[in-house]
Amino acid sequence: MAGNSIGQIFRLTTFGESHGIAIGGVIDGCPAGLFLDLEQIRHELQRRKPGQSAITTQRKEDDEVEFLSGIFEDKTTGTPIGFVIKNKDQKSKDYSHIKDSYRPSHADYTYQEKYGNRDYRGGGRSSARETACRVVAGAIAKQILHSYGVDVFSYVSQIHNLVTHLDPEQVKIADIDANIVRCPDKEMALQMEEYIKEVKKAGDSVGGVITGVAKNVPVGLGEPVFDKLHADIGKAMLSINAVKGFEIGSGFGGTFLLGSEHNDEFISGEKGIETRSNNSGGIQGGISNGELIYFNVAFKPTATIIKPQNSVDKEGSPIVLEGKGRHDPCVLPRAVPIVDAMLALTLVDHILRNKTAKL
Amino acid sequence: MAGNSIGQIFRLTTFGESHGIAIGGVIDGCPAGLFLDLEQIRHELQRRKPGQSAITTQRKEDDEVEFLSGIFEDKTTGTPIGFVIKNKDQKSKDYSHIKDSYRPSHADYTYQEKYGNRDYRGGGRSSARETACRVVAGAIAKQILHSYGVDVFSYVSQIHNLVTHLDPEQVKIADIDANIVRCPDKEMALQMEEYIKEVKKAGDSVGGVITGVAKNVPVGLGEPVFDKLHADIGKAMLSINAVKGFEIGSGFGGTFLLGSEHNDEFISGEKGIETRSNNSGGIQGGISNGELIYFNVAFKPTATIIKPQNSVDKEGSPIVLEGKGRHDPCVLPRAVPIVDAMLALTLVDHILRNKTAKL
Amino acid sequence: MAGNSIGQIFRLTTFGESHGIAIGGVIDGCPAGLFLDLEQIRHELQRRKPGQSAITTQRKEDDEVEFLSGIFEDKTTGTPIGFVIKNKDQKSKDYSHIKDSYRPSHADYTYQEKYGNRDYRGGGRSSARETACRVVAGAIAKQILHSYGVDVFSYVSQIHNLVTHLDPEQVKIADIDANIVRCPDKEMALQMEEYIKEVKKAGDSVGGVITGVAKNVPVGLGEPVFDKLHADIGKAMLSINAVKGFEIGSGFGGTFLLGSEHNDEFISGEKGIETRSNNSGGIQGGISNGELIYFNVAFKPTATIIKPQNSVDKEGSPIVLEGKGRHDPCVLPRAVPIVDAMLALTLVDHILRNKTAKL
Amino acid sequence: MAGNSIGQIFRLTTFGESHGIAIGGVIDGCPAGLFLDLEQIRHELQRRKPGQSAITTQRKEDDEVEFLSGIFEDKTTGTPIGFVIKNKDQKSKDYSHIKDSYRPSHADYTYQEKYGNRDYRGGGRSSARETACRVVAGAIAKQILHSYGVDVFSYVSQIHNLVTHLDPEQVKIADIDANIVRCPDKEMALQMEEYIKEVKKAGDSVGGVITGVAKNVPVGLGEPVFDKLHADIGKAMLSINAVKGFEIGSGFGGTFLLGSEHNDEFISGEKGIETRSNNSGGIQGGISNGELIYFNVAFKPTATIIKPQNSVDKEGSPIVLEGKGRHDPCVLPRAVPIVDAMLALTLVDHILRNKTAKL
Repeated sequence: MAGNSIGQIFRLTTFGESHGIAIGGVIDGCPAGLFLDLEQIRHELQRRKPGQSAITTQRKEDDEVEFLSGIFEDKTTGTPIGFVIKNKDQKSKDYSHIKDSYRPSHADYTYQEKYGNRDYRGGGRSSARETACRVVAGAIAKQILHSYGVDVFSYVSQIHNLVTHLDPEQVKIADIDANIVRCPDKEMALQMEEYIKEVKKAGDSVGGVITGVAKNVPVGLGEPVFDKLHADIGKAMLSINAVKGFEIGSGFGGTFLLGSEHNDEFISGEKGIETRSNNSGGIQGGISNGELIYFNVAFKPTATIIKPQNSVDKEGSPIVLEGKGRHDPCVLPRAVPIVDAMLALTLVDHILRNKTAKL
Repeated sequence: MAGNSIGQIFRLTTFGESHGIAIGGVIDGCPAGLFLDLEQIRHELQRRKPGQSAITTQRKEDDEVEFLSGIFEDKTTGTPIGFVIKNKDQKSKDYSHIKDSYRPSHADYTYQEKYGNRDYRGGGRSSARETACRVVAGAIAKQILHSYGVDVFSYVSQIHNLVTHLDPEQVKIADIDANIVRCPDKEMALQMEEYIKEVKKAGDSVGGVITGVAKNVPVGLGEPVFDKLHADIGKAMLSINAVKGFEIGSGFGGTFLLGSEHNDEFISGEKGIETRSNNSGGIQGGISNGELIYFNVAFKPTATIIKPQNSVDKEGSPIVLEGKGRHDPCVLPRAVPIVDAMLALTLVDHILRNKTAKL
Repeated sequence: MAGNSIGQIFRLTTFGESHGIAIGGVIDGCPAGLFLDLEQIRHELQRRKPGQSAITTQRKEDDEVEFLSGIFEDKTTGTPIGFVIKNKDQKSKDYSHIKDSYRPSHADYTYQEKYGNRDYRGGGRSSARETACRVVAGAIAKQILHSYGVDVFSYVSQIHNLVTHLDPEQVKIADIDANIVRCPDKEMALQMEEYIKEVKKAGDSVGGVITGVAKNVPVGLGEPVFDKLHADIGKAMLSINAVKGFEIGSGFGGTFLLGSEHNDEFISGEKGIETRSNNSGGIQGGISNGELIYFNVAFKPTATIIKPQNSVDKEGSPIVLEGKGRHDPCVLPRAVPIVDAMLALTLVDHILRNKTAKL
Repeated sequence: MAGNSIGQIFRLTTFGESHGIAIGGVIDGCPAGLFLDLEQIRHELQRRKPGQSAITTQRKEDDEVEFLSGIFEDKTTGTPIGFVIKNKDQKSKDYSHIKDSYRPSHADYTYQEKYGNRDYRGGGRSSARETACRVVAGAIAKQILHSYGVDVFSYVSQIHNLVTHLDPEQVKIADIDANIVRCPDKEMALQMEEYIKEVKKAGDSVGGVITGVAKNVPVGLGEPVFDKLHADIGKAMLSINAVKGFEIGSGFGGTFLLGSEHNDEFISGEKGIETRSNNSGGIQGGISNGELIYFNVAFKPTATIIKPQNSVDKEGSPIVLEGKGRHDPCVLPRAVPIVDAMLALTLVDHILRNKTAKL
């Protein structure tokens, strides 16, 4: 109800502000009997962590997850998995100067109005730091998907007007982390990296698109009519900070095709009934059809910039805001594991939901 | 859980197949004391009805809603509002020829695989006929929004490659239904109409974009972190048949801007604190900021076409499907009231949810 | 949220007032592939129906259920099952005399205060007529339970101070409907029947206890810590009109035992690990242990009586209420199928929920 | 879904095993702007804490709650309140001897069967230690109730066959904690204390009844038809460890009254419309009517006893279990704050739910 949970059966609830004592979460509904690979969870957290490369913020955050429950002798017990990630030095800084300022395109104003007060330190609850909890839960979800033979991955496919035209079907997972942009198109990745560095130097920020992919998804996931699989994936993506758009399969581009061009013919193939093309993006009538699921997620440029900006304070009086030294000129490379996580969470939830579709 | 409900407090559950006895729904959580304008509900149903113009299917459906409960002396009582819309002549036709056929880009195959059996007559549960129930509930939601001074509307902004560049802020509601395309740009509407007629003649179909708008939305709607207002609007839109994409505010286009170009400066205006630009689309940090909410919804071309298509049957054997005489060459004009409805449902739910944000 | 749904996966939503056009419901989450025995559903409705014997109200209600969706060729399709039961002659009577009266121990006053208005005809939403919808859904749930080998039944075990001491384990289902009281203890049933007739003649009403039983329940149902199996059964029972108490296993009587007397020793038996005694009532730690589940449900005497009663009207002015000719002197015989239904609904929901407990 | 959350708007999710690193919880949906009295929260935890008196277990647990989020400058921010209570010395003991034993009337067997593995140390998730998290959340709920003028309290009204006949309406809160039994009837409390000591000496355990009370509850709480206020209170109580029964108002005793004796006449009183008697227990038609809410909760004797008991191990082989030195001969005194907590949580949830009943 208050919006801090996602999933129906595999259900993640997160808590925590960026500068409170800790952030954390509870995963309820994780099936018992899963051997947890803690190293893989740490690896995914590292992929999201600030300060990992020259094109992300140099801010240091300590993303060490501590599991408090639900795991016994390295196996899930079916009881809720509670976990925390401590915030470092959360009281070390003085935030009183932004206490009454409304930063453009941040959530300062809306939180203040909605709740009447807010933890203004570093974005508080609206900070993207919260997504670390999603990555923890998503990493566990990935391990469950693995047991079903499902692979999920995502990659940067556009930075500003630099676009890769790689076919999602052909992308190799190993190529994604081969560069700091997390674009598996090596040439394009270099250009993107250069561009992000320029933008950073200019004290500005830049957005782009992440493409998400799920391979070997079983047929039958998705609960029409409202919880269509792509509707739930879409919501999961739109819940990520800075996301402004989502499209599945042919998406907005598909509006330029005629029905006779867009329809995916059924054929008899190796794995049984398949489709010749895949404009549907692996989902028909809201239910997975066994083909590749692929989608695009649009990220706006980061709201935090170094350049001075006009704004107002709580009283509506004009102020000029000037950014400080460290910022994320482009969140996309670090958002790749978050897209992975939200996709994995959604798929696992639907795998579990689908277990009761038939008698 | 099984996906036939939407909303947390104002909650719609729908039921029914296109060729069963009736479709219908239950609205639970509608506040007591609302005088219902039944005429307006019928009006919205007429806007969605097949056969309303030369560019929609000529199929006749009788969309008469009958309210069974929850209303007493024309006022809502706070108890659930049950309603049905009877299906006409649901047994008159022989559907056995499509019983074992999988129509391209329809839900035949996925329903069959998920559930093991299906009502194959005319799409069954996956038919867009179900959306009539959404329109009924959405019409009631619109009346609640009206009591809060909120206006919602939507219009066709693109058909194939014909695009209007009207500013959503400037659109007049009266101009939308002024033509059968439901595009408030008169000139463009004529071109769209012509184009749809051509496509129809060719036995093909076409998609496009609907723009949705909400005006005078109170500040504070949306429940971070997962039920961000645009995440819930996005899900609601993606749950509509044939929708493949959703973008809020600057959307995918916003990825081509720098942070300094994209950020919405706060200013002191007539209604208090406002923003100079509105790339955020009226939502910041997942919470409405009082500015215009606007978004785009991409509809693929209708899957049903008259042109012959290759496919397979249940056994995977090749078949050729040939469309019959009546089809919807373009669903967008009829989808406008559905977008309205899903938007209204989402906003009302969030207005009610927001009532407990503060002590 | 507004309280008209029950169940998480197998989810029933009901609607309808006693004197509106119809009552009805939607069952979402019924697994596909169940052959429905419509005759059995009608049979359960007959068991609940008014006017079935000399000790129930002589009021005539037509409890014909019509299924509108979710069933195709006699089998469930996995889509929502919508159904309605029409109300007969709902406008034939003049209810204006009770419009402003608050009947003692009815819901008139509380509905009026909560919602600001109410359908005052015959109890409206608070009428026990709503339970007919529960019986329909419960009958379907019973058929699912049957496919799992689970039997559920209930019977009248106390009327006023007439108590049967039958061991629930020994009760034969066939003996329950062998008399109009639905007490399988033949001798006691006769006494109860006599007593109810006396009370009826006196224009008064009487309560009692129904014992509910579930046999062959699989081990593992129940979701600790909050959705313990007996907590969900208890809630389901307490949601029935006129119910004031619930106890599982040893219940309130168990408070008079010491731990050494109350504990159920584990033993090795025919079906594997069993317990020697069953004070737990088949549930330990909130999870079924395979033993007989049994519980008691306390029903207060019906609020509607013929004897004159003092009360007040809407303005608080004293009035005297006099009952009319037909009333239910004792609801218990007709409540037996309702207890059955609520038990069946709860167990099916937990069977489905339990499908994802382990990987 | 997996059962570790309770409440719809004011929603508590708990996690943790008795011998894991920590137990804890997340409260989502706590309204913003509540000044938290941390001292009062600690006080409630002290009331539940083991080792507090000669009649409870002498086991030492450190019940220090640490709040991690959702509170800023001592006020709730409307974001989720995460908290943890560390477990002391959780690895210090050897539990391998009970690893494969099934203790009578504990949850060992059912957890093992449901989940396939379990944290067997000291009861794991099924331990009553989890209820400390409920007390934390309940203490916050109590503070919200306080702002509405609502008082909740509970007290021991029966130990074995020692019963107090105090009228709940007359009980003074101050008298409850005046003795270690938490029975406000001073004389009876002494007898109860003596009896518990005897039972303890005998290595046995004893159960009883706690009476719960809510005063000054606003009219209108409760959501018919399934989420009737007493159904939700009942479920909350039945979810507490060792609870076997619940009755509201006249409860099981009311079955011995006739309708004319049981019905609560409406009268015009000081606070407006009142009832002369209160067999309804403050709730009619599932909705609070402004009168005192009172109910009884039956607790079975603690399953852990010192006396030797027969049982079986995982393989079904007979074993004899002998209790160790420290046990709770009677949980009721320590369960009083848990009943308080579950009542407060339920009422706050319904206060918030009721905010959208009327337009």
